[in-house]
Amino acid sequence: MITTEAKMVTSETVINFDLETYLKDKKAIVDQALDDSLPIIDPEKIYEAMRYSLLAGGKRLRPILCLGACELFGGTQTMSLPTACALEMIHTMSLIHDDLPAMDNDDYRRGKLTNHKMYGEDIAILAGDGLLAYAFEFVVDKTENVTPERILQVIFRLGRAVGARGLVGGQVVDLDCEGKTDISVETLNFIHTHKTGALLETSVLSGAILAGASEEDLENLTLYAQNIGLAFQIIDDILDITATQEELGKTAGKDLTAQKATYPSIWGLEESKKQAQKLIDEAVNALTIYGEKAFPLQAIAQFIVNRKF
Amino acid sequence: MITTEAKMVTSETVINFDLETYLKDKKAIVDQALDDSLPIIDPEKIYEAMRYSLLAGGKRLRPILCLGACELFGGTQTMSLPTACALEMIHTMSLIHDDLPAMDNDDYRRGKLTNHKMYGEDIAILAGDGLLAYAFEFVVDKTENVTPERILQVIFRLGRAVGARGLVGGQVVDLDCEGKTDISVETLNFIHTHKTGALLETSVLSGAILAGASEEDLENLTLYAQNIGLAFQIIDDILDITATQEELGKTAGKDLTAQKATYPSIWGLEESKKQAQKLIDEAVNALTIYGEKAFPLQAIAQFIVNRKF
Repeated sequence: MITTEAKMVTSETVINFDLETYLKDKKAIVDQALDDSLPIIDPEKIYEAMRYSLLAGGKRLRPILCLGACELFGGTQTMSLPTACALEMIHTMSLIHDDLPAMDNDDYRRGKLTNHKMYGEDIAILAGDGLLAYAFEFVVDKTENVTPERILQVIFRLGRAVGARGLVGGQVVDLDCEGKTDISVETLNFIHTHKTGALLETSVLSGAILAGASEEDLENLTLYAQNIGLAFQIIDDILDITATQEELGKTAGKDLTAQKATYPSIWGLEESKKQAQKLIDEAVNALTIYGEKAFPLQAIAQFIVNRKF
Repeated sequence: MITTEAKMVTSETVINFDLETYLKDKKAIVDQALDDSLPIIDPEKIYEAMRYSLLAGGKRLRPILCLGACELFGGTQTMSLPTACALEMIHTMSLIHDDLPAMDNDDYRRGKLTNHKMYGEDIAILAGDGLLAYAFEFVVDKTENVTPERILQVIFRLGRAVGARGLVGGQVVDLDCEGKTDISVETLNFIHTHKTGALLETSVLSGAILAGASEEDLENLTLYAQNIGLAFQIIDDILDITATQEELGKTAGKDLTAQKATYPSIWGLEESKKQAQKLIDEAVNALTIYGEKAFPLQAIAQFIVNRKF
């Protein structure tokens, strides 16, 4: 898999790759697969609620990272698409539960009313539970041309990425920090490596595992994933200050109102941007060993730091 | 596995089996395994909340059914104990979320304050999510001496039992029926085959699958499990009327107060008891083909209809 002839790809040369078309094509594939994944049966209300949030748009970054990492190691879409969908189901579950009144109490998400605003709190809790459980069922049911051992590795990583060692653990510390202004960078890193980073890392690694990547490959991808995960969050914090609600599709300026500790609140805007760019450069460099094959993942890293929403 | 010499075991002869010792021994094994399954690490609060409900006692019926079904087909505890624990994690998750103010709004469970009363709604939602995700991770991480194919089958069934085709679907219809007095037996059956039945069935079948049971064996066990599942719920409804809060460890008479449709409200108490006994007899008969080896599972069926709490 390692192309020794490949030139070092720097942040500047990567932008030659047509990421816009790549993202558009992959997103269309993922959107269709998600639409197909969850037909409405009895009791209709819960399927409608699950579909409402699952199909509410979004960048589909996690599924695309999974598809891209699988392709990098010669894997096919048949191998990775079910896991790609499962990642989005899990991500959607976390958004539905995070938006609940008992949590972040948000009324808008992706430009639409949040799940509990549409269907009520009880259904929103259950829709999240249903999506989480279905993610695991779906991977087992739909994955093709992959050994059972590899599928089990993916299940393990999905479980860990959501649980107290991942998403849930990050959200707990995040809730705990609300209203506190003296949060250290270490605590902020803990929150985000768990709340955002763990699932992004699992997205990349699960795609690679399904394609049969080696331990060394997984190490390179871990470095890539951890760097883009943290950069992603720094940019999220920056956008919360600089972007409008229309651009974000969710309430803007929330962190300031909630007096939430963020990277810009600790480092300032300019330094935060610098740190994000540094992380992205490291992510890009972690994959130069794979040459042109890594262009899609490297371009995605660039996109994360340059995105406006 | 089929003992053709075995006499037909009727409900009366089964009671010779020392179920009390069996349940006590198995419960001790399960309680210890659950205690070991979830050490407290950082962030401590979420692990404490997860442990609070997971270790709050209970009959451990689902894990014991899993262990028992695995033994029936010559499987070992090493094979089934992780799945047994996962079943209890999932069951506990469903109790935590069902008790939330947005759902059944319960203050007591198993004689203790409910999770959200102890830790707050946000943590209770996250503790449920964490337990659900951990259940899948745990099965993959800890199961030994079982082929990956069988473990994947168990993961699939666990996912389906929790999701909209199981627990979640049953709870949605249950919430929908609240306050309605004209619920049909069909709707009541839908609620309970999903809300209670699906996970009980998965408990029995997953144990058998881990041990390598045949398709025919799984059919026999499905019949057994579906019958005890429905009987279990009928008895639950009866106990809600006849038992005291102290015996139940949760609020008694809730169904009456909530004007909830129950089997006794449709059939009356006596007929409900008869129907439960009939289901249990069918469950017992479904396993007579296995002779003495089926005594534990048959005795558990009897226990379900005779229990006082």
